[in-house]
Amino acid sequence: MLINRLVERIKTLGAPIVVGLDPRINELPQHLKEECYAKLGKSPEGITAAILAFNKAIIDNICDLVPAVKPQIALYEQFGVAGLMCYLQTVQYAKEKGLIVIGDIKRGDIASTAQGYSNAFIGETDIEGQRVAVSNHDFITVNPYMGYDSIEPYLADCKQYDKGLFVLVKTSNPSSKDIQDLQTADGRPVYAHVGQMVSQWGEGLIGSSGFSNIGAVVGATHPSQGQELRKLMPHTFFLVPGYGAQGGKATDLGGMLNNDGLGIIVNSSRGITGAYQSAKYKTDDNDFAKAARQAVLDMKADLEANL
Amino acid sequence: MLINRLVERIKTLGAPIVVGLDPRINELPQHLKEECYAKLGKSPEGITAAILAFNKAIIDNICDLVPAVKPQIALYEQFGVAGLMCYLQTVQYAKEKGLIVIGDIKRGDIASTAQGYSNAFIGETDIEGQRVAVSNHDFITVNPYMGYDSIEPYLADCKQYDKGLFVLVKTSNPSSKDIQDLQTADGRPVYAHVGQMVSQWGEGLIGSSGFSNIGAVVGATHPSQGQELRKLMPHTFFLVPGYGAQGGKATDLGGMLNNDGLGIIVNSSRGITGAYQSAKYKTDDNDFAKAARQAVLDMKADLEANL
Repeated sequence: MLINRLVERIKTLGAPIVVGLDPRINELPQHLKEECYAKLGKSPEGITAAILAFNKAIIDNICDLVPAVKPQIALYEQFGVAGLMCYLQTVQYAKEKGLIVIGDIKRGDIASTAQGYSNAFIGETDIEGQRVAVSNHDFITVNPYMGYDSIEPYLADCKQYDKGLFVLVKTSNPSSKDIQDLQTADGRPVYAHVGQMVSQWGEGLIGSSGFSNIGAVVGATHPSQGQELRKLMPHTFFLVPGYGAQGGKATDLGGMLNNDGLGIIVNSSRGITGAYQSAKYKTDDNDFAKAARQAVLDMKADLEANL
Repeated sequence: MLINRLVERIKTLGAPIVVGLDPRINELPQHLKEECYAKLGKSPEGITAAILAFNKAIIDNICDLVPAVKPQIALYEQFGVAGLMCYLQTVQYAKEKGLIVIGDIKRGDIASTAQGYSNAFIGETDIEGQRVAVSNHDFITVNPYMGYDSIEPYLADCKQYDKGLFVLVKTSNPSSKDIQDLQTADGRPVYAHVGQMVSQWGEGLIGSSGFSNIGAVVGATHPSQGQELRKLMPHTFFLVPGYGAQGGKATDLGGMLNNDGLGIIVNSSRGITGAYQSAKYKTDDNDFAKAARQAVLDMKADLEANL
């Protein structure tokens, strides 16, 4: 079962870490971009060729250290059809290297439409008897604002195909307070209600690890809320963004763990893929993949020491 | 200004109607599918060729009657890269025919990521000085669960490129109650707070029509909430899904209008594009586009009589 595999990989590797593959043009090495522009022009085709080469080198250098990667689809969609192709090739390459892939797509829509997203990202599309798998993610992120019936199609596919979700509960960004922190009439904030719903939605998909294939997104930037949500959602695995660049610290995350020291996978994107640009990891040959590997090892040590 | 153009078109045509282009395989005429399968196989390429031909025929037959169309991207994404191409070609074709295009994409993410979506759908992507417009929507739908900073990048692009948003406030599906109807400590439901925020976000983008480029999604299935939101959001245009197939009636929508009888654009998808399959519009030649045109005229008459 997917969630058990994730938990086992985290234990084996000693690394509750997911590397975010969020391509930013100014983060790609100049020589790589120049090579691709020379062949394909300063175009969506050119830049996505550079991104794919960059992602593959990162994946090659971290796939023995971490259980998972998380490509963020918006940063590919901005390059149109070439961007989507690059996104899907990145997912495919990560899978071939044995990684669990969390598609950060944050979709959400009414049931009949959600089924379309579910077909695209975790299930299959049935073209009158011809079944097509558009992509091969393990988990995807989804947005709960439209409620249960907007999530139900994914739950059915999670059961059928052994896939998982991370549902937004308390996100890492400052404005997450606008809606998620609204106090409700029973004294609890909105995110606590959402957390409880997500926990219930996952009840039918709990594995031998004690966790469900249906997880939650809980930002590293909100340690006390994370602790509160852990108590409320003992069987829910947390995808934790906001570590590093956004200000979340390893020392903040202890309260999100269960008694076995499990229950979270912490994302870092720029902190890993952009490490080579920081003074700490700068080398003469600007080897971004080597720097990324070292940044993962340092993040692992930081989590080991401070969690 | 975009919102003024939308209001003017609605007045000129007497049709506060947007036609949803939500491709469903079982809604496409058999002969059209067979032709495309014969050429391209029962494949994403084959089915999307049929969808594009279907959409173009629908657009040709309704573009003089309604101001806008709303393609729903999930139902294209389920066909992968071919699906995205079909989606973008549909948007392009509708624009060429003079229609305002509302991309129903319901995206939402932290600011740095939202910028990627905004580049893709309403702005431009800057590839180191080479500016690329991936698509050419007028409005897009977005999800507010992550709060202001997740919307701000779109607002900046709406200002720069004269584009618009419809932010989810009270959606048409039954489970919209799960989060949107939670009662907050001040006695108001969550959707009222969201409505107030959306109204504020749009303050800098109000046109001579009295409405803002920043609109809200308010389901036809919730007439009393719609009336409440109209009072709270006098300058906010409403995109109203849920008419017809989902149960919303023209007689339910009066409370969402302002004193000038303006303020909403009502979506119908299956009710128009699938009209030819219903007994009411069935003809010997199964002319889906002619049936769609008649269904639009009937919807227009229904709104005129009952709004």
